[in-house]
Amino acid sequence: MSKKSAPKKTSATKTPAKKTATQKTTVKKGTAAAGIKKSKLSTPNPPYFYFGGGKADGHAGMKDVLGGKGAGLAEMSKVGVPVPPGFTITTEVCTLFYENGMKIPDDIDNELSKAMGHIEKITGKKFGDPANPLLVSVRSGAKFSMPGMMDTVLNLGLNKETLEGFAKLSGDERFACDSYRRFVQMFGNVVLGIDKETFEEVIEAKKQARKIKHDSSLQVEDLNDIIKKYKHIIKKKTGEDFPDDPYQQLRMSRDAVFRSWNNPRAISYRKLNNIPGNLGTAVNVQAMVFGNMGNNSGTGVGFTRNPATGEKEFYGEYLLNAQGEDVVAGIRTPQPIKDLKNDMPVVFDQLRKITSQLEKHYRDVQDFEFTVENGKLYMLQTRTGKRTVQAALKIAVDMVKEKLITKEEALMRIEPSALDQLLHPRLDPAAKYEVIAKGLPASPGAASGVVYFTSEEAVEAATAGKGKKVILVRQETNPDDIEGMHASVGILTSRGGMTSHAAVVARGMGKCCVAGCEAARVRVDKKQLQIGKLIIKEGEVITLNGSTGEVIIGDVATIEPELSGEFAALMEWADEIRHLRVRTNADTPHDAIQARKYGAEGIGLCRTEHMFFSEERLPIVQEMILADSPEERMNALDKLLPFQKEDFKGIFEAMDGLPVTIRTLDPPLHEFLPEKGEIEKRIKELDKADEEYDEKLNRLKKTLLRIEELKEVNPMLGHRGCRLGVVYPEITEMQARAIIEAACEVNKAGKKAIPEIMIPLVGHVNELRNQREVVERIVNETKAKYNARKLTYSIGTMIEIPRAALTANEIATEAEFFSFGTNDLTQMSMGFSRDDAGKFLRYYVDKGILPKDPFISLDQEGVGQLVQMGTDRGRATKPDLKVGICGEHGGDPDSIAFCHKVGLNYVSCSPFRVPIARLAAAQATIMEKQKTSERDK
Amino acid sequence: MSKKSAPKKTSATKTPAKKTATQKTTVKKGTAAAGIKKSKLSTPNPPYFYFGGGKADGHAGMKDVLGGKGAGLAEMSKVGVPVPPGFTITTEVCTLFYENGMKIPDDIDNELSKAMGHIEKITGKKFGDPANPLLVSVRSGAKFSMPGMMDTVLNLGLNKETLEGFAKLSGDERFACDSYRRFVQMFGNVVLGIDKETFEEVIEAKKQARKIKHDSSLQVEDLNDIIKKYKHIIKKKTGEDFPDDPYQQLRMSRDAVFRSWNNPRAISYRKLNNIPGNLGTAVNVQAMVFGNMGNNSGTGVGFTRNPATGEKEFYGEYLLNAQGEDVVAGIRTPQPIKDLKNDMPVVFDQLRKITSQLEKHYRDVQDFEFTVENGKLYMLQTRTGKRTVQAALKIAVDMVKEKLITKEEALMRIEPSALDQLLHPRLDPAAKYEVIAKGLPASPGAASGVVYFTSEEAVEAATAGKGKKVILVRQETNPDDIEGMHASVGILTSRGGMTSHAAVVARGMGKCCVAGCEAARVRVDKKQLQIGKLIIKEGEVITLNGSTGEVIIGDVATIEPELSGEFAALMEWADEIRHLRVRTNADTPHDAIQARKYGAEGIGLCRTEHMFFSEERLPIVQEMILADSPEERMNALDKLLPFQKEDFKGIFEAMDGLPVTIRTLDPPLHEFLPEKGEIEKRIKELDKADEEYDEKLNRLKKTLLRIEELKEVNPMLGHRGCRLGVVYPEITEMQARAIIEAACEVNKAGKKAIPEIMIPLVGHVNELRNQREVVERIVNETKAKYNARKLTYSIGTMIEIPRAALTANEIATEAEFFSFGTNDLTQMSMGFSRDDAGKFLRYYVDKGILPKDPFISLDQEGVGQLVQMGTDRGRATKPDLKVGICGEHGGDPDSIAFCHKVGLNYVSCSPFRVPIARLAAAQATIMEKQKTSERDK
Repeated sequence: MSKKSAPKKTSATKTPAKKTATQKTTVKKGTAAAGIKKSKLSTPNPPYFYFGGGKADGHAGMKDVLGGKGAGLAEMSKVGVPVPPGFTITTEVCTLFYENGMKIPDDIDNELSKAMGHIEKITGKKFGDPANPLLVSVRSGAKFSMPGMMDTVLNLGLNKETLEGFAKLSGDERFACDSYRRFVQMFGNVVLGIDKETFEEVIEAKKQARKIKHDSSLQVEDLNDIIKKYKHIIKKKTGEDFPDDPYQQLRMSRDAVFRSWNNPRAISYRKLNNIPGNLGTAVNVQAMVFGNMGNNSGTGVGFTRNPATGEKEFYGEYLLNAQGEDVVAGIRTPQPIKDLKNDMPVVFDQLRKITSQLEKHYRDVQDFEFTVENGKLYMLQTRTGKRTVQAALKIAVDMVKEKLITKEEALMRIEPSALDQLLHPRLDPAAKYEVIAKGLPASPGAASGVVYFTSEEAVEAATAGKGKKVILVRQETNPDDIEGMHASVGILTSRGGMTSHAAVVARGMGKCCVAGCEAARVRVDKKQLQIGKLIIKEGEVITLNGSTGEVIIGDVATIEPELSGEFAALMEWADEIRHLRVRTNADTPHDAIQARKYGAEGIGLCRTEHMFFSEERLPIVQEMILADSPEERMNALDKLLPFQKEDFKGIFEAMDGLPVTIRTLDPPLHEFLPEKGEIEKRIKELDKADEEYDEKLNRLKKTLLRIEELKEVNPMLGHRGCRLGVVYPEITEMQARAIIEAACEVNKAGKKAIPEIMIPLVGHVNELRNQREVVERIVNETKAKYNARKLTYSIGTMIEIPRAALTANEIATEAEFFSFGTNDLTQMSMGFSRDDAGKFLRYYVDKGILPKDPFISLDQEGVGQLVQMGTDRGRATKPDLKVGICGEHGGDPDSIAFCHKVGLNYVSCSPFRVPIARLAAAQATIMEKQKTSERDK
Repeated sequence: MSKKSAPKKTSATKTPAKKTATQKTTVKKGTAAAGIKKSKLSTPNPPYFYFGGGKADGHAGMKDVLGGKGAGLAEMSKVGVPVPPGFTITTEVCTLFYENGMKIPDDIDNELSKAMGHIEKITGKKFGDPANPLLVSVRSGAKFSMPGMMDTVLNLGLNKETLEGFAKLSGDERFACDSYRRFVQMFGNVVLGIDKETFEEVIEAKKQARKIKHDSSLQVEDLNDIIKKYKHIIKKKTGEDFPDDPYQQLRMSRDAVFRSWNNPRAISYRKLNNIPGNLGTAVNVQAMVFGNMGNNSGTGVGFTRNPATGEKEFYGEYLLNAQGEDVVAGIRTPQPIKDLKNDMPVVFDQLRKITSQLEKHYRDVQDFEFTVENGKLYMLQTRTGKRTVQAALKIAVDMVKEKLITKEEALMRIEPSALDQLLHPRLDPAAKYEVIAKGLPASPGAASGVVYFTSEEAVEAATAGKGKKVILVRQETNPDDIEGMHASVGILTSRGGMTSHAAVVARGMGKCCVAGCEAARVRVDKKQLQIGKLIIKEGEVITLNGSTGEVIIGDVATIEPELSGEFAALMEWADEIRHLRVRTNADTPHDAIQARKYGAEGIGLCRTEHMFFSEERLPIVQEMILADSPEERMNALDKLLPFQKEDFKGIFEAMDGLPVTIRTLDPPLHEFLPEKGEIEKRIKELDKADEEYDEKLNRLKKTLLRIEELKEVNPMLGHRGCRLGVVYPEITEMQARAIIEAACEVNKAGKKAIPEIMIPLVGHVNELRNQREVVERIVNETKAKYNARKLTYSIGTMIEIPRAALTANEIATEAEFFSFGTNDLTQMSMGFSRDDAGKFLRYYVDKGILPKDPFISLDQEGVGQLVQMGTDRGRATKPDLKVGICGEHGGDPDSIAFCHKVGLNYVSCSPFRVPIARLAAAQATIMEKQKTSERDK
């Protein structure tokens, strides 16, 4: 019983003890208090770090203390890059600020003018000097970039007196007035907390009164009037005059930046991005430079290489006599950066030299900003340049060739999941289109096609005479839809999550798929798709972007994928480094060949049931299900045997010399029977005049009865997996015979088949022992029949039931290999039906209850324990047990890193994710090395 | 890949290494080889152990070496009870026999005549002496009783010569001939392996030829002729003459008994009863005694106390001049044993004295057999007497009063599950009835009633005017059926297992229930129940025996339960000893009161949803589910609040001073909506003339839509449990408010409510944290409103998702208590839907794939690991965490013993299982003590 009679504190002030116990989770879910860490200044850093004039107190490695921006400015200055001089007030001062009741300790505050003296000395200007005023910017800069989340004040140092000097110096009174106007507005907003709107209204009123459209048409007297009104507002709202003293302006701004660390925007950004709340921010005070002081001034941005293609070319644009915001405003069209060579040849050469130097220094493409003030170049910022995956690939491989980076670094530079973009068609970036709804990005790629609402109609429309490109639209798909999906270029469903049937199968097929598009109402009866008020009828065209989840009305141009030499090079390096093997999940020779092309080293999961659904086989499967006796059942199975055998032969041939893991029948039998309504319809349609009327009617009635008998409340936890094979051993017998006969025949023909027979859904060692006995009996019979003594094969099991992981030591006594079926393992360990959980799982992830969708990225803390346990306990019994994973997680980079850590032998994923897995596996090895070498230091 | 190119051996010859690794399981599933343990005769026992004449080499503690029978005979002899003298050949000799190629080592065999000399000396007869022949029996006797499984030879020692002497000695030539006939037949069958039928045919032919009916009418010449024919058969079948040499007879019989250890019957019995195959059997050779040597002879059986009632009275029956089989044959009617006082007063006194002595010696009721040969009493067997549970209870308590046994021993004498028989009505044992089908014994007790097929009709038939006793018959029940179940005296379902909805709810209500009766076809449309060709219509009478699963046609008399003083005494002793607390699962004040009467120490699970189904509430619940906004939803919830509050007040009052664990809403919302077909029917029935037609139609259509939206493929793993409360916090708010308001009001009225609020289906600590915040907010509001600062309450969670057990250390940070929901935990850990798994689970248990139905008895090896892990990890975070179990396993004795071992604080079970749990908990404590003291020895 609770002993807490006092009300508990709210989350923001939870006791530290509690927070510590769940630190990691707490941070993730975002209830972390925004407290600031206790200072531990045993060897204190100085509060101010200077930079500029080719020198700096700090360096790039001091992000903890200086924040990212401060460390970057220090580094640039240190290596001789011209940056406007300034200083950084450290994050440690921020901590002191919070500890000291939101106030800078006096001794530190007292040194502020000394710090400003540094800037004054380098610039030759003086803070508050009416004749030659120094203006500064005050910016926040935390350890991790928090773009747009923190506040900034520009043009600080202006007042009535300095304004005049500044106007003279710039030779542009209007510019000076507008700078002052902006300063007052920013200060009023950021430092004094007055709504932006309040200030904007003043400008609006003025523009209306003057009947002008653009701010730029405001004249000096207008601006002066606006400034007066601003100051009036400030006086009214705060009860204080706008501060004229530059040092007061500076102190107030500095404190506002420190305070801004805990503004709601910042807190919420940190929550979303897992940034601890106790880091604090630094404050950067830096001399202002102006690119709009005439045609000897200018401003620009650029990249050291082309960020779209990766070509090694100087890339960017600039404007003469302009400020950064003029480029953004789009009133003037910027010029390509190569023209700067003509406008300012010296500056251009200097810029090229500096940026090359920065690229070499940082050993990566730089995205830089610069300003030229009266012919003098200042670098305002440099940072790692964002790029497309195509560019990233080229740049990484080029840089290895240039000996700028190592192969390992190159491998670490590519986000594995981004490779997906290279393997699938994508929407032409130039195309314009209208997104009408958004679902889950269930299978990447893009495709346009005409919509059909049933599998049959899709097949009909897609084949032969018609040959249409079809988008199959369903509420949700089931195994019956396989042929329709195969015939389509894309699949859209209104239900189901990232691992729903549609998503899994589409990924396997490499088709694009948008799943769980809740806004879509699919009406098969009316043959229409309704999204809001928009109705799309059968035969109308839509486009799917499976990489983003977008559903688009009409046709959109797509770009076909093309694999570059860089891709091959990178994959080769990945293969050299990685320890984890990469296999594929493939059910057909076609998929197997595709996957092998992408580097698959075997098949980790071949689902035999997918072979049961084709038109000629399904009736035989149904015959088997309707059988009243083992004999009848065996009769039907005998007819299936040749089909299965041919399938396996095709796959063994495609994977010649590589292992092929074949799973025995897994889904519940009712999946192979038609819907109840379908049978009832067929009964109604029966013709009494038909000679076979009675026979047909009986058969249909029997089917109805069987459907009823096989109906399950929770089919996921029902009669499926090895439970089928245990109760109907003849099914396992047929499959084992088909596999081994196929292997023997393929081997006879000179190729090498290596079958691994995998028993699904084992929860108790006795189940596996039972099925093993059946399989071994058949294997021995068949080997004798083919005189195939040398055939190598093995028997193993899926570990997909929690109990199997818990008792893996026992189960390993009967298995040569384990393969974690992490889809089902996640369903059962977390109690989520992947068919149903979509809705609340999305809510859970949005609200931070769960950090990620556990069907996309393995829940390492929970389900991962079972993977670890299953592996360790299995190997405790059988040290050479081969262990892999064949759930959807086998293609997820984070999950692959986890598999590496746990020590699995291989991951298996859909063919199109094989390259991703190869790269992710290499990265896992590299990261492990790094950790080890860090530990050894 | 498998390296086993040679075919694997079959299970019976699996390699020992493998067997060791899975020893326990192997034995259970019964593939254990019937190998005999290696001898370890470092200090060898002698091969022969003598008994008789008031002395014995062995004693009762030597079952390992002498087998049960041998040890018993030794013990009786030792304490001076007259037994026919004999000797036991040890189980160690059996081991040698198997090691020595199915042959006794010569040195042991050579001592056989010396051993026989012991019997000859005591009896004064001589083996093979034509004048005064000694006859012996040869019987097997293993450590564990294997009734009927092993072979026996009687009257051994007869041949042509000794037969004459024996005839003279007995004074009855026909008897002597018949004894010889029996011996030859038994020997032919048991020792020589000839079919019994072959011999029976000879007798049959003779009886037909002589036109007589009974064996007893056969005359001496008939018998001689039969013996001749027998010998002829033996010669023909074995090629050898029937052995005349008594020693040859003895040796062959001895070896046959040793061989019988591995006959198929014995192996299969051992499999079924978990008896290791390597124990071996002993052989008992004992002088024959005959009760049919005239009126000074006789035979009888008896009990030292009445095995039906437990009364302390000498109980049994006897026949003068008769053999044991005459009693069995039923040709003569035995006399009550008290008449023996008149027939043989000396023998009677001696028998009373001996049996009393045996009861005292064995400290338990004895079931004995005796024979009087020529006025001399011989005890042939004594063993613990089987008894009814009523008798067991009385005997145990009486024996404590008599200081014969301790309270702890008394507690260990009662099988906890047997108590069920005391608490429910049962079929009158005298009644005759016809069983028409058998289902699962889902809820104990017996009841007769008229069948109804819907809940509504059941309620109507049961209430007021009609007041019928109703049996509700359904395919399966769902929460909609609660009222119907309440109105009925028994429930029969054709689907579902031991923990199906019907079973769980019926047990909770204390109603008898037969579930999963697969032979029953329930046709609601036709209002009939079909079993085979039998059709039972609505209104016809059936009887259910929920303790056996029997379905009976017509009415059967039942006996009402009555609790004795012995019951109360035993329960009191149990309470003194046990450490585990026992709570109950109860949803109504009625159940709570019932459970408290049975000794419940609190409520471990109060399911709030059961309160949602009553007639006046369901429409409000549906209003809540149909709500389009949180406001509408809150509106409906406001209406539910007073109902819930009243429910809780009733329960708190009933449990005054005891903790009440209330679980927030758990089932998926669709369970509260009607069936789709029902709504479609209502739409059809709408009257267009109705003023509210449009409104009603819209509402029905909206309901249809919502049913569709809420439909789930696997509802068990869907949107339920705390996932509801997380997405719709207003539901949790209402429930928390109802609970705390009720508690405050009950406390104001002078009673003590101790609410424990339990959040279901937590899988991640964040879910619990989220719900905890909601609950605490409401609690604080409500406490303030009632000025109830002293209210004690706590918040905890169910551990029923595997992930919750795995991450219990994190979850415990937000919980004051855990309660293992082992039903769902079993479903998810093993991947079994309890609604669906019935069929194949039964197959699994039958085939030994699983040792037990895991929904009845906790799967300790698998699911149990999670219980242990959850407990240990939870307490690692919070050492004083209160941990209980509220799944169905809380009432299963084996599972309770496990809970004790794991260190739980309490178990919670349905009211009628509370006494069972109290006893099982006491036994768990006692067994632990015994183990500890054994270890300390």
